[in-house]
Amino acid sequence: MDIFILWIGFGGTIAFAVTAVLAVSAKGIDLFGACVLAMITAVGGGTLRDLIIDVPVFWSNDLSYIWMSLVAGIVAFYAQPLFNKNKINKLMLFLDAAGISLFGILATDKVWDLNFGLPVAPILLGIVTAIGGGLVRDVLAGKKNLLMKRDIYAIPVLLGCSIYVVFLEFLPHYRMFGALICMTLIFGIRIAAIQKNLAVPEWLFSKPKEEQAEN
Amino acid sequence: MDIFILWIGFGGTIAFAVTAVLAVSAKGIDLFGACVLAMITAVGGGTLRDLIIDVPVFWSNDLSYIWMSLVAGIVAFYAQPLFNKNKINKLMLFLDAAGISLFGILATDKVWDLNFGLPVAPILLGIVTAIGGGLVRDVLAGKKNLLMKRDIYAIPVLLGCSIYVVFLEFLPHYRMFGALICMTLIFGIRIAAIQKNLAVPEWLFSKPKEEQAEN
Amino acid sequence: MDIFILWIGFGGTIAFAVTAVLAVSAKGIDLFGACVLAMITAVGGGTLRDLIIDVPVFWSNDLSYIWMSLVAGIVAFYAQPLFNKNKINKLMLFLDAAGISLFGILATDKVWDLNFGLPVAPILLGIVTAIGGGLVRDVLAGKKNLLMKRDIYAIPVLLGCSIYVVFLEFLPHYRMFGALICMTLIFGIRIAAIQKNLAVPEWLFSKPKEEQAEN
Repeated sequence: MDIFILWIGFGGTIAFAVTAVLAVSAKGIDLFGACVLAMITAVGGGTLRDLIIDVPVFWSNDLSYIWMSLVAGIVAFYAQPLFNKNKINKLMLFLDAAGISLFGILATDKVWDLNFGLPVAPILLGIVTAIGGGLVRDVLAGKKNLLMKRDIYAIPVLLGCSIYVVFLEFLPHYRMFGALICMTLIFGIRIAAIQKNLAVPEWLFSKPKEEQAEN
Repeated sequence: MDIFILWIGFGGTIAFAVTAVLAVSAKGIDLFGACVLAMITAVGGGTLRDLIIDVPVFWSNDLSYIWMSLVAGIVAFYAQPLFNKNKINKLMLFLDAAGISLFGILATDKVWDLNFGLPVAPILLGIVTAIGGGLVRDVLAGKKNLLMKRDIYAIPVLLGCSIYVVFLEFLPHYRMFGALICMTLIFGIRIAAIQKNLAVPEWLFSKPKEEQAEN
Repeated sequence: MDIFILWIGFGGTIAFAVTAVLAVSAKGIDLFGACVLAMITAVGGGTLRDLIIDVPVFWSNDLSYIWMSLVAGIVAFYAQPLFNKNKINKLMLFLDAAGISLFGILATDKVWDLNFGLPVAPILLGIVTAIGGGLVRDVLAGKKNLLMKRDIYAIPVLLGCSIYVVFLEFLPHYRMFGALICMTLIFGIRIAAIQKNLAVPEWLFSKPKEEQAEN
């Protein structure tokens, strides 16, 4: 089981780093900037979570996530044409989906065990962990971030982490089972959204008004 | 007294969440993004403060601020036409003014008691608490933030928190009285600025130069 | 030696604050906003570092950096024509270069002594300390930040901090000497880049593609 988590974690980290480099390199960036943004995307969300719950940041004891995102960032920087091929691109989206599923649920699990702001904070910090790094990346790269898009990206994380909290509260003996169910749920919805190009439905969306003068 | 603080705190939190939703929904956003930005606006400043002074974040023990901003965000999202009516809009601006007054002074108070970086840090962190959440919201929503505007918004907080520090240093027995005075001062200046449409005077403002090429 | 570090530190802080005010004032800003951005630029990177390594933020015990950046910000705000003169402008760039050299190496030193995430974290946090404040400033001011430019700014810091870590690991007795060498290296490369208008070479840079529709 642990080895399973480890591999998904590595796959997700690599996907976070690679998609970061692909997302920003179209804007014109050097290798240094690309690697910084790759690392922020990969470990930024978990770092924010650890700062808020006041535990040592997860990469201070185990630098493998840092190394992996660095190497993945460098490879992606020079092998962009490869990654832009349809199949590899889809593989990265799948790994990214696996990454947000795993990191979200693991974060909810970690925060729950700390008895931190139950029952809402574990859900919130699951979301922060899954999408926080990507938000910071988009801000630094000057791109529209996922909160302002109609992609179905963070909503499955919200759903999965919420259901997992129900498991932890009412069915603590089925914790492992619940975690698997909820990860699968997040992953499934996200993959469906990618495959069928789903967007947030009308009634959950506020349409942009015609350009308003901002002062 | 405590019940009084509680109610202003709740009113301010709701106003922060509602004004956040109104501010971002014109850009096109879904319910999820709107609620995230509502929560960040409502609790972001206090969270930053608690991270810097290294105490548990205030909402880890009492989730009522989180819940309130969430509910207020959802209501505001679907009831926008209502909130855009002139009277309700003004009520929100007033509650927001009450919110920055209360949160600024309470933060200065909290930081002072910790003996943290006296006498300047309590003032700085009062400002961070009052405007930090709004800054993060504007960055994530891609809007011009209040540091770049001529609104009189943060300056009364600076003034009020500074005078409150003078009270704490030289008139510690009049602490409660000083807090009330300083909150009233912040609130009064902010309301005057709203009502009379005041802007930062010329000599405090550096005019934008003609668009410069940024490279 | 200590007095030497102190003076470079003060010079660097002043340069960070002054260059911040010059960078944002062209966009139209009031004195309050300019001073907030000056302070964030001057102490933001070190604050981020201290939050991540979980030690008290450096300015909580010694407010001189805060005061200095505040005063420098006010002076720069009103004396802009002076600072825009070529010679003073160059002096500021030189002080800024001295600042990133000193702050980067001192941060690597501090993190190394804490045994935090060796050997990579001291380098990463050296970079965070040197450029973190400037990144936050650019985000808040809505400017293109240095990660998205071809300036040679952070790369010498990466180089210097990496070499310093080699000294700390293999030549701990030459620590002081190593620190001086590495600071000189960062400073030298940065000055050469300023003087000769060097940019990141082609093979380290990914060219921007023609404007893509972002959705």
